[in-house]
Amino acid sequence: MFHSPRSTQEFNAILEQLLQGKSKAIVLVDSNTLEHCWPRIGGLPALKDVYILEVSPGEDSKDLDICQGLWAECLSHGMDRNSVLINLGGGVVTDLGGFVASTFQRGIDFIHIPTTNLAMVDAAIGGKTGVNFNHLKNQIGTFAEPIAVILWPAFLDTLPQEQLESGFAEVLKHALIADPELFRQLRDSKLTLLELFPQIMDSACRVKTSIVARDHAERDERKKLNFGHTIGHALETVAWSMEQPVTHGVAVAAGMIAAVYLSFDKCGLAAAEGEAILEAIRQMIDLSSLPHLADADVLKAMQYDKKNEGGAFRFVLLRGIGEAEINCDVSEAEAQSALAQMYAYLNA
Amino acid sequence: MFHSPRSTQEFNAILEQLLQGKSKAIVLVDSNTLEHCWPRIGGLPALKDVYILEVSPGEDSKDLDICQGLWAECLSHGMDRNSVLINLGGGVVTDLGGFVASTFQRGIDFIHIPTTNLAMVDAAIGGKTGVNFNHLKNQIGTFAEPIAVILWPAFLDTLPQEQLESGFAEVLKHALIADPELFRQLRDSKLTLLELFPQIMDSACRVKTSIVARDHAERDERKKLNFGHTIGHALETVAWSMEQPVTHGVAVAAGMIAAVYLSFDKCGLAAAEGEAILEAIRQMIDLSSLPHLADADVLKAMQYDKKNEGGAFRFVLLRGIGEAEINCDVSEAEAQSALAQMYAYLNA
Repeated sequence: MFHSPRSTQEFNAILEQLLQGKSKAIVLVDSNTLEHCWPRIGGLPALKDVYILEVSPGEDSKDLDICQGLWAECLSHGMDRNSVLINLGGGVVTDLGGFVASTFQRGIDFIHIPTTNLAMVDAAIGGKTGVNFNHLKNQIGTFAEPIAVILWPAFLDTLPQEQLESGFAEVLKHALIADPELFRQLRDSKLTLLELFPQIMDSACRVKTSIVARDHAERDERKKLNFGHTIGHALETVAWSMEQPVTHGVAVAAGMIAAVYLSFDKCGLAAAEGEAILEAIRQMIDLSSLPHLADADVLKAMQYDKKNEGGAFRFVLLRGIGEAEINCDVSEAEAQSALAQMYAYLNA
Repeated sequence: MFHSPRSTQEFNAILEQLLQGKSKAIVLVDSNTLEHCWPRIGGLPALKDVYILEVSPGEDSKDLDICQGLWAECLSHGMDRNSVLINLGGGVVTDLGGFVASTFQRGIDFIHIPTTNLAMVDAAIGGKTGVNFNHLKNQIGTFAEPIAVILWPAFLDTLPQEQLESGFAEVLKHALIADPELFRQLRDSKLTLLELFPQIMDSACRVKTSIVARDHAERDERKKLNFGHTIGHALETVAWSMEQPVTHGVAVAAGMIAAVYLSFDKCGLAAAEGEAILEAIRQMIDLSSLPHLADADVLKAMQYDKKNEGGAFRFVLLRGIGEAEINCDVSEAEAQSALAQMYAYLNA
């Protein structure tokens, strides 16, 4: 299902094979990918007959009204059960396009061409699709797999540095929960993030694909992918509500730091390993944009997180690098202390 | 997955087991099933904590705005990924409720309790969910299986005769495409339809469940279930547009008659078998409400049917009773002639 073409000719050949015998293809883009990414592949012969549908960039496009507009366009362009939707973009486009395709006439084939490293190693993998509803993220969606994901790291030179970093926060997370060798590569590399990415992309993708293959419906092992996200999501939410937004990557990186402190006490994470993790996070992600948020607000936002069950917070913590443990109960006092240690580390 | 309780105690025990450990349950009804069916099971201890969501009866409820209202209610009543939606109704409620459940938080468990014989042997089986969109039927939907279907024929005494007949048109179709023994039971029975139904329900359900098990995504064998529907759908559409609506059952029964005439010429159906089928249809379904529609209008409506490919109409025809053949090419002239023979038979 994953394709990593080494040339535009190979890219074209992959698309030609995927689109063979299909009645029609539409490409879904946002204004950014239309401007920066489409020109790089729009000339491929395999794509000469496709129609383009455009949405605005950003989370607001993950919306049911937008879906209705897209479904109507699919109908008016004669899409049928034998047609294909190609999603060219970051996580918003892959989540939205995946949902639109998986529900149009009870599901048509779709292809992801992720254009951010975050989408390449995360959003485009695992078959989660969805839109936001009533101001809640991803409340309406499906589990549906694309027929193919085409990985083309050349798109990444269109990305701003902070978006690259956001992707690397997830790469680092993948290393920490399941791949010690990937962690060593990330830590020891002297390359820039952009130069490094093509080398580690396959390993970073493999962590998620193999976890998802074992636990598609997130009953169990897939929860490991939430490492750093319990506090990370809360930081993101509070920062946005204070109008001091931080990127997902910065929030997750900070959440991973807090989770490391919790892991010392609650999971027996060795001091040396923990220190190495903290150092790697700081080296890779610029955390200076994280505002100092009130503990009380962050804890309150965590209460709303749907992964919590019955009073205590449910964390993913680390026994060691590459060894994650799910369903760790963490009290409010422990979470508060980890937040304080996280801020102390960042200010040191 | 199918349960046929023999008593209300057993009905309750089945529900108790299904709902055990679930965080919450909501029952979806329409005004008819709320009035006629809910009072018969609402008192079961297993259902004492459920909340009821009501929609209007009829096809107009299969609508994305209605879905949005239902999703919002699910959220406001605290439904989460561990909750259950129970769909108590006919095909509209099972199609709508199945779609709402299969997309809420990327899919929660749902249970069908069909209240019409049509839903019992057809709509509730096979995992098709969906709503209408832009005046087209079932354009937005999913393939998603309920965790259980509870069959309780006692609900059927609340149904008007014409709805019972609609269900029997599908039962007859199941017999004709795959079960000669069921056909003999239907033909030879001296019971009323209501009396007969509990005896043949299991066989009628088994035809569809076994076809669907072999071809869930309707690539191939599942198309057999469209027997009688190519012309049937067209008759239904034209009759509605003329404001002389016919029931789905009458339209399908007429469509099956036309398909029998086509089967003589194109599939080698023996005269005696064909006569037996025609006689059984007329005996079981009152076709007097079918208006005489212009051939040209019916043929035009057939052009829009999505099952047709490349010019010719694609029919399911019969080689014999219980032996269906898919993808039979039928020209416009042949279809027109079959329509004429169908009307001649009904007027004879």
